[in-house]
Amino acid sequence: MDQPPLGDVFGEMIRDAYAVRTGVGPRPLAGGRVPRPVIEIIERDDGLINGAPADHYLAEPEHWQPHDVRALRLCRGAVLDIGCGAGRTAIELQRRGMAVTGLDTSPGAIEIARKLGLRDTVVAAVDEYARAETRYDTFLLLGNNLGLLEGPERAPTFLAALAALAQPGARIVAQGTDPYGTTDPVHVAYHQRNRERGRIGGQLRLRLRYRLHATDWFDYLNCSVEELAELLRGTGWTLKSVDTQDRPYYLAVMELTS
Amino acid sequence: MDQPPLGDVFGEMIRDAYAVRTGVGPRPLAGGRVPRPVIEIIERDDGLINGAPADHYLAEPEHWQPHDVRALRLCRGAVLDIGCGAGRTAIELQRRGMAVTGLDTSPGAIEIARKLGLRDTVVAAVDEYARAETRYDTFLLLGNNLGLLEGPERAPTFLAALAALAQPGARIVAQGTDPYGTTDPVHVAYHQRNRERGRIGGQLRLRLRYRLHATDWFDYLNCSVEELAELLRGTGWTLKSVDTQDRPYYLAVMELTS
Repeated sequence: MDQPPLGDVFGEMIRDAYAVRTGVGPRPLAGGRVPRPVIEIIERDDGLINGAPADHYLAEPEHWQPHDVRALRLCRGAVLDIGCGAGRTAIELQRRGMAVTGLDTSPGAIEIARKLGLRDTVVAAVDEYARAETRYDTFLLLGNNLGLLEGPERAPTFLAALAALAQPGARIVAQGTDPYGTTDPVHVAYHQRNRERGRIGGQLRLRLRYRLHATDWFDYLNCSVEELAELLRGTGWTLKSVDTQDRPYYLAVMELTS
Repeated sequence: MDQPPLGDVFGEMIRDAYAVRTGVGPRPLAGGRVPRPVIEIIERDDGLINGAPADHYLAEPEHWQPHDVRALRLCRGAVLDIGCGAGRTAIELQRRGMAVTGLDTSPGAIEIARKLGLRDTVVAAVDEYARAETRYDTFLLLGNNLGLLEGPERAPTFLAALAALAQPGARIVAQGTDPYGTTDPVHVAYHQRNRERGRIGGQLRLRLRYRLHATDWFDYLNCSVEELAELLRGTGWTLKSVDTQDRPYYLAVMELTS
């Protein structure tokens, strides 16, 4: 399978979703002529494959999930929106007059975020950006991006990078998903298999596919609040509050205390 | 990858689409709890992967594509709806008082078609069913099911099976897609590659994936009207009319003349 420049599968998808939404620019067509909705396809390492419309990455606030709206009220000071994608959240914060930087590893997604009006953007992983001079008061991980903690191996490094970028008293506002409320045998078996391999039950191993392109396999974490608290131990970050109003989704606020 | 009973990947998908639409019965949930739209995922043998919402298989006539509506006016006498899926077309013909049999290789899809009210159904491929005593005046191939001709190898056998089931003067009403109007380099390269291998440009090699399941690879034909006419030679079926109002889609009427 061909890889787009920089392996930017997500960016290719976002570019097309933007083109379909606006009707401007080249975009995939059904029958070679009829615009078709852009679908994000995720494969899991047990063979599960799922598709979901990608248009939500470009959704206006009135179409957001309620916890995304509530998350913005938890932001204060200078905000780093991590994995900002096409910038829907960062743009809304900017519109509200807040200082916000959108960070994403996808050049294609950042290109669309800039087209949509996001002024301060960075194409980088958190680790590289941790060497920057800038400091932030809030780290925002929406769209299930608590998943970027990946698991017990990656989480301390990821959280240390945020600590390096933190103003005193900084917070993380992260949206996660507790995967364990399901009775779907496909998911229950997957959680069990993961545990047998010494992984967290919801430590997903995924890859994103879009048209001819596929990312490498990567870990993405769905965990319970208890598992999150465990991952935070010894990192300097402490769980301060959890909003579980939209279960199985939750908003966790973590603060830097050491 | 596990295979469901009888390899009924399509049926699994249709069952879930029906459950999501009606809110009844087990269905895949996002986060294990939130209903998610069912997406049909098709892989092509060049690595192209596409997703499309599966809900259209259950659409009411007012949401159909215009050529599907026009196709029904071309039906006369006893109709065999081939690859009827969840039965949306057959049910509408039945509602209009026509004699119609819905045929599909998917037990799951036929199960849903019957739930939706389709009375006369057959779970079989056309070849097996060709041994039946019943005779039809119209063979309906909608939802791009002209693709079931597969290519030059399969087409004569498929068309002979329909001839065996035909009343004198019977017709085929088939919806096809001319794939050659595109400038998308991914498709243009695929057509070229097919021709280099002695295949028809739009002779797609596909498999359907749904959740943990995948079909075997199968051929599915997108061809021009000229290519269709060529495939009909020596089969006894002759092209009588073509409705190209919704290009690249077309409706072809073929009649049995020998």
